[in-house]
Amino acid sequence: MDKKRIWELGRDNAETYREKKKLPVVLVVDNVRSLNNIGAMFRTADAFLVEQVVLCGISSTPPSPEIHKTALGAEDTVRWSYYHDTMEAIDTLRANGYRICCLEQVKGSIELQKFKVSNAEKYAIIVGNEVDGVDQLVVDASDVALEIPQYGTKHSLNVSVSAALSLWHFFLQLK
Amino acid sequence: MDKKRIWELGRDNAETYREKKKLPVVLVVDNVRSLNNIGAMFRTADAFLVEQVVLCGISSTPPSPEIHKTALGAEDTVRWSYYHDTMEAIDTLRANGYRICCLEQVKGSIELQKFKVSNAEKYAIIVGNEVDGVDQLVVDASDVALEIPQYGTKHSLNVSVSAALSLWHFFLQLK
Repeated sequence: MDKKRIWELGRDNAETYREKKKLPVVLVVDNVRSLNNIGAMFRTADAFLVEQVVLCGISSTPPSPEIHKTALGAEDTVRWSYYHDTMEAIDTLRANGYRICCLEQVKGSIELQKFKVSNAEKYAIIVGNEVDGVDQLVVDASDVALEIPQYGTKHSLNVSVSAALSLWHFFLQLK
Repeated sequence: MDKKRIWELGRDNAETYREKKKLPVVLVVDNVRSLNNIGAMFRTADAFLVEQVVLCGISSTPPSPEIHKTALGAEDTVRWSYYHDTMEAIDTLRANGYRICCLEQVKGSIELQKFKVSNAEKYAIIVGNEVDGVDQLVVDASDVALEIPQYGTKHSLNVSVSAALSLWHFFLQLK
């Protein structure tokens, strides 16, 4: 089993990628502090054809050397926008037909792996701050809350890991 | 949908967790340089009941303030060991009945989501260096190569993200 060379991976260049059909999935990054985490999420969004990354609140935006360090240029290929107010981002997405899904440990959540993704819908997935998670106001404004079952001692997973598991779930059902 | 309070998450304390039955899955970390990545992998291993993290080569081991920063203490609850030589780790795991699965983009790989996990087997999942991936020698010594399909411009995902997607795949089928 020989490792594939870079040119055997069949990756797109930036221009081809921009024209490529994306999944109807937007990742909303609500007040994420770590630039490493933001960069890693851009890189995952690039791999799984996420339509847009919506950065909100304290979440930093490109260009940033620290985001670049983990995004490795994916911040230049994945479409992104910024909203100071996460609620305004949600209102805009809802008005444009997106179903609002927050990723949070709440009463009444659906376990991620049980959530059926429909080809007929568009989705916004919201991930929250490293310490406080998704704000309760944002949870209240969501159509559905998705939760990753966890059986360890820690309260939560790293936010870029949680985002990746969610995007992978949607990717597998939509691609 | 109210957010769950910490005490409503039903997490184990360290002692209860250590006694808990784990998945027959070991994560082998082959020459991973970033302490952030190692910490994040410990945190994921904690959540998904991974039996052991095997750190190899240049991969740093706890105790380390940098690992702690992302592992948040999971490095104290998840069992771990260290091998200078990854091949020796593989030989030991194989001798103990583990099926050796490397996570790498190789010819003849199986897409991760298509890999059937059996309740009758034990698995070692190997992830590799941030730049060079899993070494070709280690790939050659593996029983199977798993590959995460990626449709973007970047060559690979962040290693802690790749490890998480793999552990999640095994977790969902074994739990």
